[in-house]
Amino acid sequence: MKRLSPRTLPVVPLALSLALAFTVAGLQPAAAQESSSWSIGERDVPPPAGASEQLQAALAAVPAPSVAASRQQTPQSDGQWLVMQKATANANLDQIASGFGVSIEKAEVEGVTVYRVAPEKVHPRHTDHLFLHVHGGGYVLNGGDASVTEAAMVASRAGIVALSVDYRMPPEHPFPAAVEDVVSVYKHLLESRSAKSIAIGGTSAGGGLSLAAVHRFIALGLDVPGAIYAGTPWADLTKTSDSLFTNEGLDRILVTYDGFLGAAARLYADGHDMKDPLISPVYGDFEGFPPTYLITGTRDMFLSDTARTHRKLRAAGVVADLHVYEGVAHADYLILVGSPESEDVFAEVSAFFKKHLE
Amino acid sequence: MKRLSPRTLPVVPLALSLALAFTVAGLQPAAAQESSSWSIGERDVPPPAGASEQLQAALAAVPAPSVAASRQQTPQSDGQWLVMQKATANANLDQIASGFGVSIEKAEVEGVTVYRVAPEKVHPRHTDHLFLHVHGGGYVLNGGDASVTEAAMVASRAGIVALSVDYRMPPEHPFPAAVEDVVSVYKHLLESRSAKSIAIGGTSAGGGLSLAAVHRFIALGLDVPGAIYAGTPWADLTKTSDSLFTNEGLDRILVTYDGFLGAAARLYADGHDMKDPLISPVYGDFEGFPPTYLITGTRDMFLSDTARTHRKLRAAGVVADLHVYEGVAHADYLILVGSPESEDVFAEVSAFFKKHLE
Repeated sequence: MKRLSPRTLPVVPLALSLALAFTVAGLQPAAAQESSSWSIGERDVPPPAGASEQLQAALAAVPAPSVAASRQQTPQSDGQWLVMQKATANANLDQIASGFGVSIEKAEVEGVTVYRVAPEKVHPRHTDHLFLHVHGGGYVLNGGDASVTEAAMVASRAGIVALSVDYRMPPEHPFPAAVEDVVSVYKHLLESRSAKSIAIGGTSAGGGLSLAAVHRFIALGLDVPGAIYAGTPWADLTKTSDSLFTNEGLDRILVTYDGFLGAAARLYADGHDMKDPLISPVYGDFEGFPPTYLITGTRDMFLSDTARTHRKLRAAGVVADLHVYEGVAHADYLILVGSPESEDVFAEVSAFFKKHLE
Repeated sequence: MKRLSPRTLPVVPLALSLALAFTVAGLQPAAAQESSSWSIGERDVPPPAGASEQLQAALAAVPAPSVAASRQQTPQSDGQWLVMQKATANANLDQIASGFGVSIEKAEVEGVTVYRVAPEKVHPRHTDHLFLHVHGGGYVLNGGDASVTEAAMVASRAGIVALSVDYRMPPEHPFPAAVEDVVSVYKHLLESRSAKSIAIGGTSAGGGLSLAAVHRFIALGLDVPGAIYAGTPWADLTKTSDSLFTNEGLDRILVTYDGFLGAAARLYADGHDMKDPLISPVYGDFEGFPPTYLITGTRDMFLSDTARTHRKLRAAGVVADLHVYEGVAHADYLILVGSPESEDVFAEVSAFFKKHLE
């Protein structure tokens, strides 16, 4: 089989002939341009007509997210971070329990606070299985009782018992405290159950931290879990991914990197190299990873984090399923609960666990 | 298992607390806004640092695509379409043959012109297999000898014999001529081989037409092929998909719907309902479809067409693999031949054929 380089290419019509001029130009060395960045003009973007009515209505009801305003919404001191952290750690556990039909029990494992979330009815396939849930919130928020929200969603939909890790967070406990806490809980679980009976996962920082933790499990010589659920994972804390730029202002949840996200990344990394695979797992070696389920949307600022992680997993020969939802921004499926998109996500995650856990 | 609607939602902290204000607003009925569209401001988009050096260099070397200029690049008469069609139908078959290490033979099947493309060495897994190739070009361009380019790429990479269909196109032969031609060739093939030994596919209009043809195969009661390769398929000819708006001007190949694309759609549909599944296959019923491989990129204007098709396939219980490449625009893998992205696409397609053809 021959390997062709652009230099040896036969000159033939390409995918779309209209593109030929750009293409030929694209194969020339850079020279003419002053900046390699593109200035993309203003555009009007309607609600995604191919998305569910619920999602369309949610997007039509609000003005375009303000990138300028979001850039200002950045805590300026540890004190301000702590105020936000405390405010977002509150949740009404009784309401969550009755709303999702689960029981919730707070406990401590190896000094780490965890929440055991059990569905009313465990699915027969999951009698011996556990979902180790890692919550999101940019590595800074949504701890405490709030950790359990997504765990309750997955537990009730999949009919699986979940254990949600209330890992330590900055400003008081920056990296690597969160990774250490997940590892501690996982090692404790391995004392009484097989690795393949455990699915690990979460959304956003929870997805990223799950991937980082598996890198750490492998480095420690531990057996890997049976499956990973990486919901729009924050897999790269640096400002690298294409969708941080292309979807800025289109993602109504994250809006921009240059506010909360960038600040949270710096707070969490605490001076460590952000390309450390335990901080930005996309930079790691994915050989030996378990089957991984990845979710994102066309308006997700972590579309690229998710897609890049998927490609790294595939390149390492790992079973990896990527799912992109039309018009969906970061973690929309946790927010528009009951929407077709959200129902579909949890049905798919449930099927994935049933297929891969042992 | 309980089904929650937003109305019965327990009020709990969500994915990212910063999003809470938008979220709460998002669950309210629309009222305040004058238009439901968002005006998204100007942005600077650098080359995708997570993509290959070749792709980054190709993007850095050209200015941002001009949406305004692309809107003008629309043929205004059948005569102008025919000039473009003729200009893009030329290819140097000797160069393609030697460049990709294939032999090319022109023939006629049931009155349809086809090109048989055979690699120097057929892979042992593919001794009895055939790739039925459907070329792209917006249903109007890249016919004639130019049909074979992608077929040669797949044939040489996968080590599989390909048959490329030079289907009839508008303005002289609008819908349903193209579908009929693919059906004629497929029926002819079934006389001498099993459906499961055939993979059908192509890129752009070629991906869309492949999906439409399989809808037609099923309606006719024919056995479906063993696999589909849907490279950034034009699965919806209407202006519906989210990425037609979000990636306008970011996709250096397609640039905008409101020029060549929209005009080609109208020319091809020729007054038929564009939501006919034989024209826009995403609107069809995907039950009974064979395993399907889907490719797109974060800057692809058909990102949404591809993702929406993937979801419809999954909802119908079909094996469907979605792959999104970082920073990649529409059909970039056919253009930047030899780039890591392009090599990866054809390696994956090859593996998919080897897995699913019988």
